[in-house]
Amino acid sequence: MADIDSPIERAARDPIGVTTGPIRGSRKIHVGPLGVAMRAIDLDPSCGEPSLNVYDTSGPYTDPNARIDIMAGLPQLRRQWIEGRGDVESYDARELRPEDNGQLGPDRSGGVPRFPRVIQRPLRAKAGANVSQMHYARRGIITPEMEYVATRENLGREMLRDYVRDGESFGAAIPDYVTPEFVRDEVARGRAIIPSNINHPESEPMAIGRNFLVKINANIGNSAVASNVASEVDKLVWSIRWGADTVMDLSTGRNIHDTREWIIRNSPVPIGTVPIYQALEKVGGIAEELTWDIFRDTLIEQAEQGVDYFTIHAGVRLPYVPLAAKRVTGIVSRGGSIMAKWCLAHHKESFLYERFDEITEIMKAYDIAYSLGDGLRPGSIADANDEAQFAELYTLGELTHRAWKEDVQVMIEGPGHVPMHKIKENMDKQLQVCGEAPFYTLGPLTTDIAPGYDHITSGIGAAMIGWYGTAMLCYVTPKEHLGLPDRDDVKVGVVTYKLAAHAADLAKGHPAAKMRDDALSRARFEFRWRDQFNLSLDPDTAESYHDQTLPAEGAKTAHFCSMCGPKFCSMKISQEVREFAAKQNAPVESFVAAENAEAGMAEMSERFREKGGEVYLPAE
Amino acid sequence: MADIDSPIERAARDPIGVTTGPIRGSRKIHVGPLGVAMRAIDLDPSCGEPSLNVYDTSGPYTDPNARIDIMAGLPQLRRQWIEGRGDVESYDARELRPEDNGQLGPDRSGGVPRFPRVIQRPLRAKAGANVSQMHYARRGIITPEMEYVATRENLGREMLRDYVRDGESFGAAIPDYVTPEFVRDEVARGRAIIPSNINHPESEPMAIGRNFLVKINANIGNSAVASNVASEVDKLVWSIRWGADTVMDLSTGRNIHDTREWIIRNSPVPIGTVPIYQALEKVGGIAEELTWDIFRDTLIEQAEQGVDYFTIHAGVRLPYVPLAAKRVTGIVSRGGSIMAKWCLAHHKESFLYERFDEITEIMKAYDIAYSLGDGLRPGSIADANDEAQFAELYTLGELTHRAWKEDVQVMIEGPGHVPMHKIKENMDKQLQVCGEAPFYTLGPLTTDIAPGYDHITSGIGAAMIGWYGTAMLCYVTPKEHLGLPDRDDVKVGVVTYKLAAHAADLAKGHPAAKMRDDALSRARFEFRWRDQFNLSLDPDTAESYHDQTLPAEGAKTAHFCSMCGPKFCSMKISQEVREFAAKQNAPVESFVAAENAEAGMAEMSERFREKGGEVYLPAE
Repeated sequence: MADIDSPIERAARDPIGVTTGPIRGSRKIHVGPLGVAMRAIDLDPSCGEPSLNVYDTSGPYTDPNARIDIMAGLPQLRRQWIEGRGDVESYDARELRPEDNGQLGPDRSGGVPRFPRVIQRPLRAKAGANVSQMHYARRGIITPEMEYVATRENLGREMLRDYVRDGESFGAAIPDYVTPEFVRDEVARGRAIIPSNINHPESEPMAIGRNFLVKINANIGNSAVASNVASEVDKLVWSIRWGADTVMDLSTGRNIHDTREWIIRNSPVPIGTVPIYQALEKVGGIAEELTWDIFRDTLIEQAEQGVDYFTIHAGVRLPYVPLAAKRVTGIVSRGGSIMAKWCLAHHKESFLYERFDEITEIMKAYDIAYSLGDGLRPGSIADANDEAQFAELYTLGELTHRAWKEDVQVMIEGPGHVPMHKIKENMDKQLQVCGEAPFYTLGPLTTDIAPGYDHITSGIGAAMIGWYGTAMLCYVTPKEHLGLPDRDDVKVGVVTYKLAAHAADLAKGHPAAKMRDDALSRARFEFRWRDQFNLSLDPDTAESYHDQTLPAEGAKTAHFCSMCGPKFCSMKISQEVREFAAKQNAPVESFVAAENAEAGMAEMSERFREKGGEVYLPAE
Repeated sequence: MADIDSPIERAARDPIGVTTGPIRGSRKIHVGPLGVAMRAIDLDPSCGEPSLNVYDTSGPYTDPNARIDIMAGLPQLRRQWIEGRGDVESYDARELRPEDNGQLGPDRSGGVPRFPRVIQRPLRAKAGANVSQMHYARRGIITPEMEYVATRENLGREMLRDYVRDGESFGAAIPDYVTPEFVRDEVARGRAIIPSNINHPESEPMAIGRNFLVKINANIGNSAVASNVASEVDKLVWSIRWGADTVMDLSTGRNIHDTREWIIRNSPVPIGTVPIYQALEKVGGIAEELTWDIFRDTLIEQAEQGVDYFTIHAGVRLPYVPLAAKRVTGIVSRGGSIMAKWCLAHHKESFLYERFDEITEIMKAYDIAYSLGDGLRPGSIADANDEAQFAELYTLGELTHRAWKEDVQVMIEGPGHVPMHKIKENMDKQLQVCGEAPFYTLGPLTTDIAPGYDHITSGIGAAMIGWYGTAMLCYVTPKEHLGLPDRDDVKVGVVTYKLAAHAADLAKGHPAAKMRDDALSRARFEFRWRDQFNLSLDPDTAESYHDQTLPAEGAKTAHFCSMCGPKFCSMKISQEVREFAAKQNAPVESFVAAENAEAGMAEMSERFREKGGEVYLPAE
């Protein structure tokens, strides 16, 4: 099945267009000597609050001063840092072959236009060198990438006054303030990774780790049955606009190589791929015909383009395959089933497992991080936490330590479909078996019965496992299990996962997280509607929902909303209560004392007086 | 502000229309001697599985054999049961007054048409009698209502073969099989309620309790700024079509009485209200002018119409009010702030608290259940689990035991806005303080920063607190905090809460819950697309999403989907894996043994061999 339309004519007809311009109600700012990009949300002067800085994944696209040219790609922020370390060399790139784009011959019909400025001479580590961030970290070197991450993670933390930690982090070690040294230490210990292929200098450094803000990933990519390069670049820019921290290009079918080039050159966030997908296309989709040489060549091809992390399903071992036979939904990971089929057909151990150390050598030379794939993840509630899944996890733990021996960065992929009562076991096992390497989960979905709403069934599991310690959450869109996500689905998926990640940060007691909730709640209480919209994850939707009921411009400053109407408002009454209480010269306690007929009520009050500080925030 | 349009002309123009007809892919069935309504979902003959019976809240509206006439109301299923008990008498109804509909005089302009068949002679308990289900239960009487509930809750439980309980219920006592005697015992202990006003004989009995399926409530109602009676009746029918177990009429502004009559007469599910809303309208919205007499009269007015449960904010006591002063968002409960204002204005204890026993006398006479309101629930993350909230909860516990002395049914309302790490404390305290009376929570929202997506921020908290033991979850729509929900918002809110409630049932290990997940997962694995749609909570959306990518009719039977395309499918490979494993004459264990170089992997296998039964279901 070919692409639905002919991308080449299409691209000629209308050049690739993406959404640019500031997100409503916020300003792009650049913080510190490295000019770390953030969004500043200015509040109504009436409240006397400073503007709130929030984490910003959107790159130059939301910067009115940036010149965006998709045909040229983004500026190479990291180029000098990389070359400055003096441990890389440039060389002639591997030659592009027709099969890289799924063409059988030189004919490029049905193909996509090549990116105009393809890297002709990529970088790699000099002989014997290791250019991974983990390697630098373990040698005590603080890279600009680590400094960038430190500034980026702190956000407004310096604004916090007498902050009292309030949360349950299940043994995480979240610092009050993130220093470059802390970042270095986390990377050195393998508890965090900074995906940063030296051939993707356009990327803005970010960290994935349990002691940093919870991150989210969005999947895009051509499919054998639909979409084209223009819409994939548009989806990339659209997904980072709403908060995707990394993006995976899961393209299948034709034009995989060229599509990826357009995506990487225009991406300020790390790009991940599943190389086995492209290798499979090269052998016409016949898993048995995969060979180590074809796979290895595909890794080099993608390494030179700048892919920041590879999903490698090296944990799907021959003896585990039959364990999946008794399952309700068998093997649902595409990469996992490819390898399972290969293992069965040859009745041989997986070449990914056997050649693991050779793969590691390639990762070292470009600083590509492992995302060890969970090829045997459960595809249904019935299969959650079963033998196949945990047998593979144990092997991923073994491989993590093997990669760490070579100072290569690693994260671990997780499920999937898991009922709530079995989620924590996944997190606990992963931490124990994989030495605290970052966990990167797909949801998990907490029930199978709501196709069409799986961004929500999985958002529940994602928030929970993020709270328990997962470092990055792979989004699920409303189309999961049913169809290919369009632009709107991508946005809903990203915002849903953004709120799940934030709920997790809040519950972990992340110092910077609660500031935004409190700022929005104060705006809500004071009827600062615009501030309420602008502080939300999706200002456009918030305002349009408000306007559907009260379109009048005046309603945006009105001291009431459509729920109760103008006649009566609980928020207004609360203001009166506050004034009344202020007038009382007796402290609140005396009120309570006056009525403590019920011992219990007094006991309550007491209990809270003790740790009052923990529960309250000053109202202004 | 008057209603946006003139309902009277409107009603004359187009009579009230509602959505009727079967839900796609399912059949209405009536089970047992009482004809308990359920939905049967027939599966493709190819799978050889029996049809799955699911819980059905939609009433006669989805029964093709039922004659629906909104002007006449629903058949009175419970009429004979109620009269058969011989403890009720009919009497002349309280006379309708203009202020009941917010009219200052006899002029009904801007009003709504009266329901044609208003009850002229309502029922009440004979002098000295108590007609509450709890009273019967405590006297050892099993009512038809209890029998109906038992059949309704069991669903396909009798179909379960060698079922092994898999879940964590945190001390709940969910039986393998629900008997009428079990229902009686739960109601007698106060652990469950069956809201069933004797003047709402149209209702199909349902139970709210921690040891039954988790229920959800949908809110509808006129607002001072919008909507009319036709759209409210339509929302009622629409919300129960998608799964609302009870509906609250939160009407404010004008026409409250007439709107409620239309709703109750056409509702097969229990209807709840917040009487203080109407009482406030009767005094022109001025809280200070509320009196016990006006409130009491409003209770009688609504009791005669058939309201099944009343939200009473009797826990908002004078001494607690100042505790809300230090909050970021003060008092956000409308009823709570009305009473707070009254208490402050008069500097007197709440008349709801002081007259509580008199209210209880009214509840007894009609079998109305208390929904003790949490008027001091937190309205923001910052205010969660604070002194004001728990001081009120303690009083609700005191009132629960006072109501129980009189055999009156009680449930307790809960928050609100609570970060994940503080949710369980809410549940634990409620169970302890309120003697296991059913908990009924609004979400809670797990973050404040996503207006426009609060059905999701709260769906996360709802699933978790449902798992911990909450009996009913009050839905939140995408318009929460922003505007009034329309039809689509109501559906999204209901389906979101339905999936959250189901995720909770699954995690609690509810015997009947997992059957549906497994049936859908098998359909997914076997590419029975129609079965997959029909087994989902929203078949219409599931099918339309699928068709957006693969519209061709053939794709509904195709052994691939749009994610991977026809060339390659992980599910297909899994089938091959299964055949392969079947061909092996050696058992799975030997595979593992052959390779147990890693002790851990073997240990894993062992660990699972032991309790394999718990984890697996037969694949066919």
